[in-house]
Amino acid sequence: MLAFHEPIAIFMEASFGDTHGKMCYDLLRFSTNPIVAIIDSTKTGKTIAQVMPNLPQGNIPIVADVDAAAALGAKAIVIGMAPSGGRLPAEWFPHLDRAVEIGLSLVNGLHAKLADRYTNLKPNQWIWDVRQEPANLGVGKGRARELKNKRMLIVGTDMANGKMTAGLKVLDVALKRGIKADFLATGQIGIVLRGKGIPLDAIKLDYACGAVEQGVMELADNELIIIEGQGSLLHPGSTANLPLLRGACPTHLLLNHKAGAKTLRDFPWMKFPPFKAVAKLYEDLASSCGTLPAAKVYAIALNTSTLTEQQAIDEIKRTEDETGLPTNDPVRFDAENLVP
Amino acid sequence: MLAFHEPIAIFMEASFGDTHGKMCYDLLRFSTNPIVAIIDSTKTGKTIAQVMPNLPQGNIPIVADVDAAAALGAKAIVIGMAPSGGRLPAEWFPHLDRAVEIGLSLVNGLHAKLADRYTNLKPNQWIWDVRQEPANLGVGKGRARELKNKRMLIVGTDMANGKMTAGLKVLDVALKRGIKADFLATGQIGIVLRGKGIPLDAIKLDYACGAVEQGVMELADNELIIIEGQGSLLHPGSTANLPLLRGACPTHLLLNHKAGAKTLRDFPWMKFPPFKAVAKLYEDLASSCGTLPAAKVYAIALNTSTLTEQQAIDEIKRTEDETGLPTNDPVRFDAENLVP
Repeated sequence: MLAFHEPIAIFMEASFGDTHGKMCYDLLRFSTNPIVAIIDSTKTGKTIAQVMPNLPQGNIPIVADVDAAAALGAKAIVIGMAPSGGRLPAEWFPHLDRAVEIGLSLVNGLHAKLADRYTNLKPNQWIWDVRQEPANLGVGKGRARELKNKRMLIVGTDMANGKMTAGLKVLDVALKRGIKADFLATGQIGIVLRGKGIPLDAIKLDYACGAVEQGVMELADNELIIIEGQGSLLHPGSTANLPLLRGACPTHLLLNHKAGAKTLRDFPWMKFPPFKAVAKLYEDLASSCGTLPAAKVYAIALNTSTLTEQQAIDEIKRTEDETGLPTNDPVRFDAENLVP
Repeated sequence: MLAFHEPIAIFMEASFGDTHGKMCYDLLRFSTNPIVAIIDSTKTGKTIAQVMPNLPQGNIPIVADVDAAAALGAKAIVIGMAPSGGRLPAEWFPHLDRAVEIGLSLVNGLHAKLADRYTNLKPNQWIWDVRQEPANLGVGKGRARELKNKRMLIVGTDMANGKMTAGLKVLDVALKRGIKADFLATGQIGIVLRGKGIPLDAIKLDYACGAVEQGVMELADNELIIIEGQGSLLHPGSTANLPLLRGACPTHLLLNHKAGAKTLRDFPWMKFPPFKAVAKLYEDLASSCGTLPAAKVYAIALNTSTLTEQQAIDEIKRTEDETGLPTNDPVRFDAENLVP
């Protein structure tokens, strides 16, 4: 794990603007690294704003290749796309090979291990394979249940609806209020942004609870630990919530949902149950028949990005009326009422 | 994955009779391979029956080394121990090196990858690393929910209480009744016994549901698929049940419990809730607010191995009275009332 501060370019070949660029878009929103270029030869000469007007840093240019990015001052290339399943397409290798050849470092959030491919590096050049299982993990022991602090896990109805973002926004508010708080990143984007964390989806089943537990115990001296959530109990391919619940033994659950969505994005046959039913599913699994700490869904974080402002306000009100729970869009509005 | 029928010897150096030999003991109970010897130089000259009188195949000799096993006709050596952490002790390598040198094949259920060490093999010699993540796994899609057959998953209150054994016993009864049935092994012992399966605890979180789903879909033409269970939802370090439930979309759950146990074996602070509460925890997670097929705990498989016969009969009766569910010990008695 690595905290780095160099200027970066984000590799998005043939992909800038599509839905699998979450790493790219979140770096644009949250990274403190200077971002000098987006690499996408199909959109050379445009700016970010001309393709995705809602993103910040709209003046950043889109360039054709890694050489052009290096000419603008990039010292590291971050792979900005995440195809489903996290595999690295063969056609990306010529670009990455060239980047390494001209001395650029690489940040790779996919499952592939690039450090094995690029072994002959220059001084100060590095390959950060974010999504590799750490060594020396063990089996979970339920130690987090004995902590006296608040442990807030973000849970959700679907993938990729802003769980990490909601958590970071709540963290900001908590820190501003003087609460001693920290954030446990559990996905590649959060890890790149924070410089450390647990690449949960790359960890063997045997060690998954233990890895979360270890991450939480390292932050045990905080009043509030915010644990980045992953996936959804409702998703047929998502396994992350069980190790998150067992490893973190959360006391508070923040339920994340994309306003307006009626089904899972990738599985329209899976219609969302009412919020109360989803909350109960998470709460019952968390408490495990009362053998672990009770964790309540105490608030709802709505992602209203596809709604108009008035629709967003109405939907937040409607959700509060339906559930009786504090609700907000922490990106569009604020997270003041979402702090546990 | 590999189905093999050669005569085997089981490597148990300094370990035959101790508690980490589950692979060995289950092979003696269930393997259809001829077993010609146990290798344990500390017990040379004895038979199995002289060390562990309760195991079947008591006449099998214990020999000093792999050469002696080969002289008795062994063509493959199976590592019978699983040390804590699943790692392979360095002092075993001289034995394994010698086995490969004299042309024997190896079956390895530990996390280590022996195929990387032994690359210069003779014709018909092979290394089977059972516990490696298969290539080409994908993310689960909930496909099993559309199957019209019965899919029975064995769930449990704790680890290592006989889930695999219960499943194999139910399979035997189902096959005898003429039901077209098969068994999806999900642990290293089941995989060695059946010749194929999914080493679930060695699979990345991202692919865990997908791996189970793929295994179930390959058996889709059966009337009954029995899915070997792993771990427990009640265990603080166990993550297997969520991918098992999502990947298999079971229709039937067989609840396994060690009769007399009041707490998790390794975590005495975790007292077992009543059967009905445990059943509801599994059932609610399986149906996922009604978005996936309902799966009911339809029967209970008790492991009564620490009880007398009369105590076992009484405990089965007491459990049936408490839960209203068919109950039996499929090893001690039979599995006739445990077939879905």
